[in-house]
Amino acid sequence: MERQVDTQIEELKKHILSMGGHVEKALDIVIQALIEKNVERFKDVHTIEEQINGDHIKVDDACLQFMAKQGPKARDLRLIFSMVKINADLERMGDQCVNIAFTGKDFLSRGGSYSLQVIEEMSVIVRQMVKESLDSFVKEDSELAKKILLMDDEVDTRKSAVFRDLSAEIKKNPSQVEACLDLILIARNLERLGDHATNIAEDVIFVSTGKDIRHGGKFS
Amino acid sequence: MERQVDTQIEELKKHILSMGGHVEKALDIVIQALIEKNVERFKDVHTIEEQINGDHIKVDDACLQFMAKQGPKARDLRLIFSMVKINADLERMGDQCVNIAFTGKDFLSRGGSYSLQVIEEMSVIVRQMVKESLDSFVKEDSELAKKILLMDDEVDTRKSAVFRDLSAEIKKNPSQVEACLDLILIARNLERLGDHATNIAEDVIFVSTGKDIRHGGKFS
Repeated sequence: MERQVDTQIEELKKHILSMGGHVEKALDIVIQALIEKNVERFKDVHTIEEQINGDHIKVDDACLQFMAKQGPKARDLRLIFSMVKINADLERMGDQCVNIAFTGKDFLSRGGSYSLQVIEEMSVIVRQMVKESLDSFVKEDSELAKKILLMDDEVDTRKSAVFRDLSAEIKKNPSQVEACLDLILIARNLERLGDHATNIAEDVIFVSTGKDIRHGGKFS
Repeated sequence: MERQVDTQIEELKKHILSMGGHVEKALDIVIQALIEKNVERFKDVHTIEEQINGDHIKVDDACLQFMAKQGPKARDLRLIFSMVKINADLERMGDQCVNIAFTGKDFLSRGGSYSLQVIEEMSVIVRQMVKESLDSFVKEDSELAKKILLMDDEVDTRKSAVFRDLSAEIKKNPSQVEACLDLILIARNLERLGDHATNIAEDVIFVSTGKDIRHGGKFS
């Protein structure tokens, strides 16, 4: 027999998933705008961010209501607890996309020609991390969540490459410092998006296994 | 008559406050090391970060236990809910201090002479924001919390000044790009510390007034 709380938890999950869909869309928009040099496209991120912010308040409210009415225990409580945190991560992921839009707009306005290959590679991995962190949350699949933790290393490697290449570029071409700094900041934003997806994966592992793997706690 | 839950809530608050004290200490250490060019001093931040990480897991556990046993409602529930979020913010503030230590160490290893005046000014404001956000939390003082939101603008102004000055410096002196990038990243870390203190202040306002002022919600 399905418990009434299960239905409510499924509703909450759907809400988080829809919010995650908005974050994925925001990321797609800003990366597409950057790669295609389409300044106008950046504007679309602001409508999506408003939706994300609306979702954020609604999910927080719904979690509060659920806790007040159901007084969940054990696994249900861990799940709601994780939703509160995942909600906060998703909201900040929306902020990072908006940051990319602002910096990306500055970058395009400066003209110049730079290879965006590594940034694009980073964005592909981060996009996958966001998607799979949400999949792992919905399915409560800790094995999938563990894979996301490994993907974060790939993002970090590429971020370091962006820093190194652009530092060299600035030395060769100091008048281009602003454009290079823009790309460095965008690489940082993507890195932070990956960090938030990693936080979500860690929360999923906590819910599924009851084990806290943050701060060097081990999973096996 | 004092409720038993009040005693438990006071205990949780004390735990958060002690964790906040560790974050303040971590910030003091890394800024002092940077200003005094004392590379060895940076190492001390790692011991403090371990304490912060230990606090983080303990506070999360204690909040989970409290919710499971007491099934808090209304204001108590909002307060516990906020503690979970403040706990996450404090943990990430610890991470930012560690990031400053790593970048600061790189910066000092490069030699060179740069004015750290604006970075120092930023750190003084951020230090005050961290302290007062915790004060406002313990006293549940929404008026003090509102002041913190205004201080964040001062941090952002200074961060922009650091970006502008160092971009100009790089153009004049392109061989110094790595050292200048280090300082730009440190300014970003300080900005993020200020953002986390702002998150705490917003949570305090939410607990005290029940009003959600995030995402353009108004307080008056």
